[in-house]
Amino acid sequence: MLIIGERINSTKEKVKAAIGARDTAFIANAAHSQTEAGADYIDVNCAVTGGSELQDMDWVLSVIQSEIKDANICIDSPSYLAIEAALKAYHSKGSLMINSISGDEARIKSILPLAIKYDTKLIALAMDDKGMPHTAGERFEVAKNIYERVKKEGFNVENLYFDPLIRPIATEPDQAVEFLKSLPLIKGLTGAKTVCGLSNVSFGLPNRRLVNATFLTMAIQSGLDAAILDPLDNHIISSLRASAALLGTDEYCAGYIGAFRAGKLI
Amino acid sequence: MLIIGERINSTKEKVKAAIGARDTAFIANAAHSQTEAGADYIDVNCAVTGGSELQDMDWVLSVIQSEIKDANICIDSPSYLAIEAALKAYHSKGSLMINSISGDEARIKSILPLAIKYDTKLIALAMDDKGMPHTAGERFEVAKNIYERVKKEGFNVENLYFDPLIRPIATEPDQAVEFLKSLPLIKGLTGAKTVCGLSNVSFGLPNRRLVNATFLTMAIQSGLDAAILDPLDNHIISSLRASAALLGTDEYCAGYIGAFRAGKLI
Repeated sequence: MLIIGERINSTKEKVKAAIGARDTAFIANAAHSQTEAGADYIDVNCAVTGGSELQDMDWVLSVIQSEIKDANICIDSPSYLAIEAALKAYHSKGSLMINSISGDEARIKSILPLAIKYDTKLIALAMDDKGMPHTAGERFEVAKNIYERVKKEGFNVENLYFDPLIRPIATEPDQAVEFLKSLPLIKGLTGAKTVCGLSNVSFGLPNRRLVNATFLTMAIQSGLDAAILDPLDNHIISSLRASAALLGTDEYCAGYIGAFRAGKLI
Repeated sequence: MLIIGERINSTKEKVKAAIGARDTAFIANAAHSQTEAGADYIDVNCAVTGGSELQDMDWVLSVIQSEIKDANICIDSPSYLAIEAALKAYHSKGSLMINSISGDEARIKSILPLAIKYDTKLIALAMDDKGMPHTAGERFEVAKNIYERVKKEGFNVENLYFDPLIRPIATEPDQAVEFLKSLPLIKGLTGAKTVCGLSNVSFGLPNRRLVNATFLTMAIQSGLDAAILDPLDNHIISSLRASAALLGTDEYCAGYIGAFRAGKLI
């Protein structure tokens, strides 16, 4: 499981304020704490700071790179200009991921060449100009079209992560099942991997962290390869560690026992 | 999901003492609290009280039946004599379950006629005189033999619940995966259902309730039909409620929201 730490996201008020104030300590701490908690990539979103996204992205990346040697970054932006600027600004030896393309042709045309040029991993949302799919089969069809499209352009599909897009179960009770069913279908596309954010699933319900963590357990069991999540959330840590122990991917249950000793398990 | 409440089990010191002292309030409370928490059946085990199992079973059943109208009982005993006595002593209109047979021929010969005569549900452990199976395939083979054996005798296989027997992941890290893989195989036997106890999975690990609850989520996702568990354990309640909401079996997430309002969710 690849963990993409979601905490440096300008849709969160505190993060937005910290970026606006050029609060180096805040960003440095967010990067360090997530890395120490096991994040493989640090997602950076500066899209809604109210300032210049390009300048903000450049500043956040410079802070992270000066703090963490060869940090792996997930560049998260609706703007291909900001993505391109971030790719140019990144000078470390870590790995890069772009978040995200979809089936939208304009988006593919602007971003795919960057992903190929900079040899990045690439998140592809399973949606197109017809909107978000409902069934597992519809998710697979959209993913398949994107898969064939980017493969034809020469993108290394081993670096392709599909997000089947989870929707709130409070209003659409079949959506977790449809999402989970889509994972093995999409992974049937040779080389393709899967990723998701968690929090939409619990929208409208109380005690959302429990629903998010339980959904994560189910998604891991169904073969999820990566997740965008808060690696400091103890519900999430508990799901990750107990799931790994149960699925035999945590040798001697060492990760589980370590998390217990660190007081991280619920 | 059928919930079998496990709290009235004489292997627990407090229960053993309560049965020995004929502590009616203790047994009544254990029955009421489990029923209110959603137990469909109340497991009754009097095997290790140190007294007479037949007399103890008779007393516990009389207490439960006088407290709860038409209580469903799961009679849990290694002794077919105690099982027979319990079946005779049960005079309510609820449903009965016998816990358990295995592939052991002597056990089948003594208990199967009782299950047929009293039209009970029946738990069958997926083990035989060769011992406990390791792989999913071995579990299925043992279950298939038992299935064919009891079907030939005229037992209604709709009432047959196979326990594939989970083993501790701390010492055998592949055993949760093998167990989970066995569930759809066994459910491929027309009419057959699956059941399990949880606690063995976490033997030897700290914070066992988290591992048990995460395993329960995975087992539910893999199609588990029933579980022997403590319905008052908030980790277990959280797994049950969040899993049902996610799998679309909790209309309007009412059970989940109710558990939240009752302060039961972790």
